[in-house]
Amino acid sequence: MDTSVFLEDLDAFAYREALASGETIVLIPVGSLEQHGPHLPLGTDTILSTHFAEAVARRLGALVAQPIAYGYKSQQKSGGGNHLSGTTSLDGAALIGIARNLVKSFLNQGVRHVVFVNGHFENYQFLYEGIDLALEELGIGPGAGQSVLLLSYWDFVSQETLAQVYPDGFPGWEIEHGGVLETSLMLHLEPARVDMDRLVDGPAAVLPRFDRLPVVPERTPATGCLSSAAGSSAAKGELLHGQVVEDLSLDLAGELLTVPAGVPA
Amino acid sequence: MDTSVFLEDLDAFAYREALASGETIVLIPVGSLEQHGPHLPLGTDTILSTHFAEAVARRLGALVAQPIAYGYKSQQKSGGGNHLSGTTSLDGAALIGIARNLVKSFLNQGVRHVVFVNGHFENYQFLYEGIDLALEELGIGPGAGQSVLLLSYWDFVSQETLAQVYPDGFPGWEIEHGGVLETSLMLHLEPARVDMDRLVDGPAAVLPRFDRLPVVPERTPATGCLSSAAGSSAAKGELLHGQVVEDLSLDLAGELLTVPAGVPA
Amino acid sequence: MDTSVFLEDLDAFAYREALASGETIVLIPVGSLEQHGPHLPLGTDTILSTHFAEAVARRLGALVAQPIAYGYKSQQKSGGGNHLSGTTSLDGAALIGIARNLVKSFLNQGVRHVVFVNGHFENYQFLYEGIDLALEELGIGPGAGQSVLLLSYWDFVSQETLAQVYPDGFPGWEIEHGGVLETSLMLHLEPARVDMDRLVDGPAAVLPRFDRLPVVPERTPATGCLSSAAGSSAAKGELLHGQVVEDLSLDLAGELLTVPAGVPA
Amino acid sequence: MDTSVFLEDLDAFAYREALASGETIVLIPVGSLEQHGPHLPLGTDTILSTHFAEAVARRLGALVAQPIAYGYKSQQKSGGGNHLSGTTSLDGAALIGIARNLVKSFLNQGVRHVVFVNGHFENYQFLYEGIDLALEELGIGPGAGQSVLLLSYWDFVSQETLAQVYPDGFPGWEIEHGGVLETSLMLHLEPARVDMDRLVDGPAAVLPRFDRLPVVPERTPATGCLSSAAGSSAAKGELLHGQVVEDLSLDLAGELLTVPAGVPA
Amino acid sequence: MDTSVFLEDLDAFAYREALASGETIVLIPVGSLEQHGPHLPLGTDTILSTHFAEAVARRLGALVAQPIAYGYKSQQKSGGGNHLSGTTSLDGAALIGIARNLVKSFLNQGVRHVVFVNGHFENYQFLYEGIDLALEELGIGPGAGQSVLLLSYWDFVSQETLAQVYPDGFPGWEIEHGGVLETSLMLHLEPARVDMDRLVDGPAAVLPRFDRLPVVPERTPATGCLSSAAGSSAAKGELLHGQVVEDLSLDLAGELLTVPAGVPA
Amino acid sequence: MDTSVFLEDLDAFAYREALASGETIVLIPVGSLEQHGPHLPLGTDTILSTHFAEAVARRLGALVAQPIAYGYKSQQKSGGGNHLSGTTSLDGAALIGIARNLVKSFLNQGVRHVVFVNGHFENYQFLYEGIDLALEELGIGPGAGQSVLLLSYWDFVSQETLAQVYPDGFPGWEIEHGGVLETSLMLHLEPARVDMDRLVDGPAAVLPRFDRLPVVPERTPATGCLSSAAGSSAAKGELLHGQVVEDLSLDLAGELLTVPAGVPA
Repeated sequence: MDTSVFLEDLDAFAYREALASGETIVLIPVGSLEQHGPHLPLGTDTILSTHFAEAVARRLGALVAQPIAYGYKSQQKSGGGNHLSGTTSLDGAALIGIARNLVKSFLNQGVRHVVFVNGHFENYQFLYEGIDLALEELGIGPGAGQSVLLLSYWDFVSQETLAQVYPDGFPGWEIEHGGVLETSLMLHLEPARVDMDRLVDGPAAVLPRFDRLPVVPERTPATGCLSSAAGSSAAKGELLHGQVVEDLSLDLAGELLTVPAGVPA
Repeated sequence: MDTSVFLEDLDAFAYREALASGETIVLIPVGSLEQHGPHLPLGTDTILSTHFAEAVARRLGALVAQPIAYGYKSQQKSGGGNHLSGTTSLDGAALIGIARNLVKSFLNQGVRHVVFVNGHFENYQFLYEGIDLALEELGIGPGAGQSVLLLSYWDFVSQETLAQVYPDGFPGWEIEHGGVLETSLMLHLEPARVDMDRLVDGPAAVLPRFDRLPVVPERTPATGCLSSAAGSSAAKGELLHGQVVEDLSLDLAGELLTVPAGVPA
Repeated sequence: MDTSVFLEDLDAFAYREALASGETIVLIPVGSLEQHGPHLPLGTDTILSTHFAEAVARRLGALVAQPIAYGYKSQQKSGGGNHLSGTTSLDGAALIGIARNLVKSFLNQGVRHVVFVNGHFENYQFLYEGIDLALEELGIGPGAGQSVLLLSYWDFVSQETLAQVYPDGFPGWEIEHGGVLETSLMLHLEPARVDMDRLVDGPAAVLPRFDRLPVVPERTPATGCLSSAAGSSAAKGELLHGQVVEDLSLDLAGELLTVPAGVPA
Repeated sequence: MDTSVFLEDLDAFAYREALASGETIVLIPVGSLEQHGPHLPLGTDTILSTHFAEAVARRLGALVAQPIAYGYKSQQKSGGGNHLSGTTSLDGAALIGIARNLVKSFLNQGVRHVVFVNGHFENYQFLYEGIDLALEELGIGPGAGQSVLLLSYWDFVSQETLAQVYPDGFPGWEIEHGGVLETSLMLHLEPARVDMDRLVDGPAAVLPRFDRLPVVPERTPATGCLSSAAGSSAAKGELLHGQVVEDLSLDLAGELLTVPAGVPA
Repeated sequence: MDTSVFLEDLDAFAYREALASGETIVLIPVGSLEQHGPHLPLGTDTILSTHFAEAVARRLGALVAQPIAYGYKSQQKSGGGNHLSGTTSLDGAALIGIARNLVKSFLNQGVRHVVFVNGHFENYQFLYEGIDLALEELGIGPGAGQSVLLLSYWDFVSQETLAQVYPDGFPGWEIEHGGVLETSLMLHLEPARVDMDRLVDGPAAVLPRFDRLPVVPERTPATGCLSSAAGSSAAKGELLHGQVVEDLSLDLAGELLTVPAGVPA
Repeated sequence: MDTSVFLEDLDAFAYREALASGETIVLIPVGSLEQHGPHLPLGTDTILSTHFAEAVARRLGALVAQPIAYGYKSQQKSGGGNHLSGTTSLDGAALIGIARNLVKSFLNQGVRHVVFVNGHFENYQFLYEGIDLALEELGIGPGAGQSVLLLSYWDFVSQETLAQVYPDGFPGWEIEHGGVLETSLMLHLEPARVDMDRLVDGPAAVLPRFDRLPVVPERTPATGCLSSAAGSSAAKGELLHGQVVEDLSLDLAGELLTVPAGVPA
């Protein structure tokens, strides 16, 4: 237990010792409970963001809070749509409320920096709003010593990695849902939770450039995946995971560990 | 993966097969991230409610959703108070919002019964409100085939068990926070996450019959626990866990599996 | 008018004179408009909490604000259920909003202590949340001179009184709704508003250890009362009222009148 | 008790008998807890709207619910301003929430018509919004058998009455706060709650044609009243009360008792 | 572009120069998209409030922000009702939210005074609430240098003007919707947007003294106007516009330009 | 006036004639009031989205509603940040509320399709949430005849156009704020509102891959623009405008005019 980076494993007194440094960083993984096709589990987004948070926390000496395990409504253009069974979502107000409460709670306890590590595309703006409302309520503005960071892990995948993972060309983040990236990462990190025998290959979905509501269900492929996971491998997952953890750790260390607060890198 | 009762481990297609029966029960553990003294981890309430949900799900052939891992503000009379570092809470609106969204999402997917298994005292009324709002929005009233149940696991501890666990007399649920019940259960279910060497013995807290806000911090014992965990044992935990799982499973089976909807037991 | 303890009877200038002391205590009764069986009026909870507030106010030199006359939804396990005609309820957000506004308004006017005197079980957590939100907005934390107290009057009934009122054993607070306690108090305080000829005797309700929504209406006895009021008397009401007013007054005086703010009793 | 028109005095079974007619009308008085100068009590608006509701209910065979005893923030142009001690207000969301909940609760119980009898100017639009939201949620549109009415009692004062009450000319409703109308009504209906010895005469307030926030406190006269109550009398109050009750009863009877729903008078 | 008073035309650097004076006044027109009979466009209220704001801004050296182009629900007694096609409304919470956000945003940028120029009756109380909430959040109370004003332009029409515009007597503001005032102003300011050939003459609507919801649609005249616009003219519009702009400019100048903040005129 | 596509110019009766077809499409431009550097006006986003909506409406025979002229908070990575004077923003709840109200209002009036034409990046998810909530409240699901579309105009810029507008390579949408695209469009559509003499050239901003709050103000270039507008021209604007209007009109016509509802293209 004493080497766990997970807050749920710490007792309150050990946690308070960590806080006493005045430099504690808490990472909050954010995911979803969402259909990811026949070969990946519903918890994929939460599982992956938690893995990234854990690995980064070990590098930075940070802590990992309980994940936000339910995400904002899946949109057809990025996740197949909220009408698909298995997809279990929060509305905007609930997700904003969770983010706002966690920021307030952690900063009030003396945490120096809170970092949301997002693994579900649709969450981003609602997390941002929750953070912004919390800081306004706390009266924390530019120049303050405490801060909150928000990021999606895929924004740290480098061009080099992309080229290796998608040798035939990257189809675009917008249809990477249950595709090669997520599947490869799961094969590397949680192989027992992937069933490649159930994978269904097929062409990538072609969706309109607008969102239409109510959705036209037929536009989502039967698998629920917007691009095929064929070509996924644990090796690609290891590459992706290693590079992202490396870059993410470096960026966060540069931002939060070595630079005085309020001064740009 | 195929024998997991956890929704996060299922793929969407396996989940849909389960839904096709029209009789799916989903249990949602609800806990907190809250100080539990020097010998128990911050995640105790979530860990315990998840264990109860899992054990009951295995008996009933039900599924377990991702836990609600943050709870309502800890109150001084039942949890020591929200001012204690480690206690990381949601306000009422956020918790109501989560419960309301999950009920709507699961019932809309075709889940027959949703059961909230609560492990943090202060959550109860806000979960109730979220459930009630969801059912009103869905237009589900008396006589409907779908339902939502809400319970706290300690309400299923029998008088006989209490007498065995507290041979000198039960001090009352209101101060059972980090006490013999939770500690014994953790010793039985998660021994690696308990550190009995850190346990601090002492008399139970004597708190006023009113709540005062802002709290008077000195009224909470230094340990953060309202009663001593001295006398806890894995054996008591096994007894508690076994009896509660037995009774809870029987009650839920009687209510949800064998009785036509809308007819009292 | 000059001897009234009720704020609605005071003119603004007399009230300001009271505020000038810097020590004003305002008690806010909280009740419900809720079925209480065939022998008690719908306003029972508000009527009783107002009586307790008035009696305590006279002892403490405090003032009594207008009651919150509508309460949170009646739950089947504690009030028979919200589906019963006569039960006219607020949702959580509305009750939180009222409590939050009243706390802010009174403390901003210079009231020293606000005390909510609750007479309807289901209100408690929502009042607590309203109080907590208000104090956060006002920036009032531990050590402040102003405070808010929250209590339910039945928590001040002593074991001795219980033994006298229920000579055959106390059935438990959870089913005391329209039972011996409330009926006896009404017989003592408002005899003209009780009609004992309409009382229906019968065994106490046996309800599950979980809440089920939507409710199974048949589980509530036809009377709407969860325990029988047979055996109620004005004498028992006098005993209950006298003892509770005595204890409540002593506790509040000890907390609010003689002890410097921020220091535990 | 059996002749009371007040819901708080009825038992649930007597109330259900009334509902069985399918024609029950419930009037809800709405007031405020607000400074009304040195000669009138803080509860004036609630007291007066309750009196009007009671008198009309007796004529129509209707029932009177518990008043909404706290109102929207007092504005400087109509009530002196919310900064004056004694004025204890709800924000818009709370008042909207109460009205919305009460409409839903009463109409769901089978009440045919709900009538809000308003006695505090600033409440009107928020009550309207609460009513409108409730009807939308209930799916009640034009042509439905159930309805909700909203009125302020002073809109039923006739020109003839005004001429008699203000022989020197009516100064305008906007500054009638603690003035001749309210004072005369209180002298007639609640003489023990008025202290004419404390009345301070003086010219009417001259306020800008705009609202300015934050208020400029000096613009409100020291009395808190916007026009003088000199010239008030119980006789004027009797005239006002009698005429308004007569007109209001006739209008409501014509609207609710004799005309089929959905057809204009 | 450099002589525009409209914020949407200014670039950020020119705007910041204006702010540097510390005396910037921003006027926000507020209107509606609402049926105004067959002869006036749906945008009438927004068009007129924008014209008044622009003219006053030119006199005062103030700026005009983008209008709030959608208003609160049209009520039958003042706008014919929200059931009439063309009437496109916001609920209370949305309008409160807009006003609250704009006040916070402008005052945080350093604007000295914000003035809401209202042209749609039903908006007023919700704008007031939004302003009040914003100032509370910003901690701006009596005596502060920054302020917010709220006004409806028709409150600045003088008795002399009224007598000239309505030689047969003024029918009352409550039924001036698509009537002589608005039509004359449009004929003067936006003649190309009025079609007098479509005007339908007829008697003024006679509406009850209460609001009834759901509305009885037949009570609104077929035109949607509550009083006839017959007798409107561009000359009357010019008179109205000139006098109101004159008075409004003088009042605002007296309040905001020459008087030290916090001191009454 | 009779040829205007703008709803604010139509009278209610002409609008109802349009609605009678059952095929009315209403486009709602959405923008912001936001700093766009020294050469573009604060209203740029609203101006551009309104131009696109108008041009498309003329092609499709659709109508254009009043724009939502204030947008969600500007984020540093996409708009420079909300701390920059001139940027006047709504929070998430307000923007969600506006979108939700407009969808409900227009669909209830009988509009067949509502199309939000977005011109401010940060708005998108909040508009989506408002739409989704409205459809849920209206009970409009897959297969319904009415629908709502949401799009950002830049998603319709083709690769060919991009190559012509950015001959040296497209820097990415995320830093196109006050850059070549917006400036060229303004030079083509609103030349009098652009001042190219004030344009400041410079390298594109390099921002972290995470969002940090509170922002580090120094990371935004002094101009407030994230990429240089050097190289902008009216010709490029004409190309952009023409191609986008063409593609957008074709896509919307294909989706809304020729395809039976509920069937994918």
